[in-house]
Amino acid sequence: MTTQEKALKLHEELNGKLETTTKIPVKTREDLALAYTPGVAEPCKVIAQDSSKAYTYTMKANTIAVVSDGSAVLGLGNIGPKAAMPVMEGKAVLFKEFGGINAVPICLDTQDTEEIIKAVTWIAPGFGGINLEDISAPRCFEIEERLKATLDIPVFHDDQHGTAIVVLAGIINALKIVKKKKEDCSVVISGAGSAGVAIANLLLRYGFRDIVLCGSRGILCEGDPKLNWMQQKMVTITNLSHKTGTLADAMVGSDIFIGVSAPNIVTEEMVASMNHDAILFAMANPIPEIMPDLAKKAGARIVGTGRSDFPNQINNVVAFPGIFKGALKGRAKQITEEMKMAAAIAIAGVIPDDQITEDNIIPEAFHPVVADVVAQAVQNLI
Amino acid sequence: MTTQEKALKLHEELNGKLETTTKIPVKTREDLALAYTPGVAEPCKVIAQDSSKAYTYTMKANTIAVVSDGSAVLGLGNIGPKAAMPVMEGKAVLFKEFGGINAVPICLDTQDTEEIIKAVTWIAPGFGGINLEDISAPRCFEIEERLKATLDIPVFHDDQHGTAIVVLAGIINALKIVKKKKEDCSVVISGAGSAGVAIANLLLRYGFRDIVLCGSRGILCEGDPKLNWMQQKMVTITNLSHKTGTLADAMVGSDIFIGVSAPNIVTEEMVASMNHDAILFAMANPIPEIMPDLAKKAGARIVGTGRSDFPNQINNVVAFPGIFKGALKGRAKQITEEMKMAAAIAIAGVIPDDQITEDNIIPEAFHPVVADVVAQAVQNLI
Repeated sequence: MTTQEKALKLHEELNGKLETTTKIPVKTREDLALAYTPGVAEPCKVIAQDSSKAYTYTMKANTIAVVSDGSAVLGLGNIGPKAAMPVMEGKAVLFKEFGGINAVPICLDTQDTEEIIKAVTWIAPGFGGINLEDISAPRCFEIEERLKATLDIPVFHDDQHGTAIVVLAGIINALKIVKKKKEDCSVVISGAGSAGVAIANLLLRYGFRDIVLCGSRGILCEGDPKLNWMQQKMVTITNLSHKTGTLADAMVGSDIFIGVSAPNIVTEEMVASMNHDAILFAMANPIPEIMPDLAKKAGARIVGTGRSDFPNQINNVVAFPGIFKGALKGRAKQITEEMKMAAAIAIAGVIPDDQITEDNIIPEAFHPVVADVVAQAVQNLI
Repeated sequence: MTTQEKALKLHEELNGKLETTTKIPVKTREDLALAYTPGVAEPCKVIAQDSSKAYTYTMKANTIAVVSDGSAVLGLGNIGPKAAMPVMEGKAVLFKEFGGINAVPICLDTQDTEEIIKAVTWIAPGFGGINLEDISAPRCFEIEERLKATLDIPVFHDDQHGTAIVVLAGIINALKIVKKKKEDCSVVISGAGSAGVAIANLLLRYGFRDIVLCGSRGILCEGDPKLNWMQQKMVTITNLSHKTGTLADAMVGSDIFIGVSAPNIVTEEMVASMNHDAILFAMANPIPEIMPDLAKKAGARIVGTGRSDFPNQINNVVAFPGIFKGALKGRAKQITEEMKMAAAIAIAGVIPDDQITEDNIIPEAFHPVVADVVAQAVQNLI
């Protein structure tokens, strides 16, 4: 059986990968009187007096919602909320397995920005955090920004920030091998959607200066009327030398290529045109911008992908469970830019300097301590 | 320690009575590839083609939302969504323990009818049913009616229908003892909110004819401008002899009293004024309209309460888990009036006729078969 066939069979057998379970048996009248009426009135009364006690007496303390509108699911695109459920359940499974966090998939029957904001705002009281997932750009930017501004719990769009954090972690270690300074590197990002924008922002904040964003029509330039509002904002802080042209033009002489775009759009010639000791993360999934072996053959020194069958898998799962674990433990009201950077540095630091190699720049998904290390890094900043 | 102190301690220790757990371990790369990317894309694609497959591949098949706005919580009133969480978690625990159903507490940060309807509509795709809970009247009536009209999954306001079903079940068996016919009985319902209205409706549908609803200002009469829209509707189908006066006036000569109202509002004299072989369900919680022993002393033949420390506890938990279990198993799109009646008859039938006594008219909460019997009765009507 192929992975596809196995996955379909598994999903049918499980009939849902996630369930709700009770922490307390209800087998006697006394159990019932304590977990439900009349006993349950007591924590209700305390919370009614002091709403912060919801963290003491309810699952809010360790529970997040995984919210999607099904508009940008994996490589599948806009498949809607019901078809997005297997992914959101899967994400919830990862939150529990890797971070010990309760996560509830919420797939919304609306793709309107205002309505998504309202829906999340209204369901927020019972949750300790909101993980936004697979919402298409540029709506995802406004939805996250506005929810962050009004809710008193962390809101985190993983497609943006989870990806950006793991990419930065990998780049930090890769630079140690090639012995280049971040200030001197020229970076090309292919993909100007949620992940590309977030990666550019986090790299800039970390200290990179020379970043060029490319979309499906080539280099993003100031004045292009086809850019969305977020891309228009991005061209004021990236592409400072005002390059124009194709992705191939952008890559000539660059030090770092980061692909969050489309399969097979990078050729061996394009890789060969990069600077010496090139770093190339080709993360389109499941088929990358260029296959890792080809990229190596063409001269890239360090190659990362989204795939688990090559070295250096750039996988969000090393970031998001620890980030929410730390945020929930510390009752953070926001996941700040500083926390994201600290998380990236912490992930990179999981691999001791003397064990960093061209094929070992990032901890693998099942690394036993990474979630706790990330959680601690986040908690230190609360 | 009192029950109150024990309950508070328990809630603090548990830090949430409910959790999400995974049905599948994620310990290897292959696990990850099947539960998440790339394998998860397969069920997504199938559901995108045929949305009914969400019941095959996701938790929707056996998962409901327990939705409240915190406006009418237990006897506590309008304590808001965060303070309502312990009750909604408790309810979710009961759904799992008694019905094997996954239930997610959703406490809404709005008490506006239109906004509640929108919120529930938007979160519906991932759920197989919606249990509305502790939403104050008369908003609860409109919210339920409109959601039932538009959603393709069952919507059930337990405070209304769960209560009505269990009351009818008790009355069915009580009538067997007193050997009165439903058509001949005069019924007084004290409480004209969600439960009182639903009880009146279900009893009428079952075949009772003479029902008088009383609110805090006495008998509900046509033409009273203070009645809400639902009460105005109810007075056209109840109180057909156009009685006026107090609750005490209503009870004179009546056969059945059903209280879903306030503590200690029924006196021994009022009970004594009822017809011979009176049936009295005093269900205000935790302090009933009249204590069971007093009611018995005053002449009531069969007495039920909401309390677990007296015989004949009228407890919704014998109804709602089985109702949703049957509805989910049969993929019902609605819980119909026929299903509610069938559930009541099924609950009554759990006690064999030769075991029905004045102190044994209704199965107790922990009766081992009641949920499955109710589920089957519901499923038979799908």
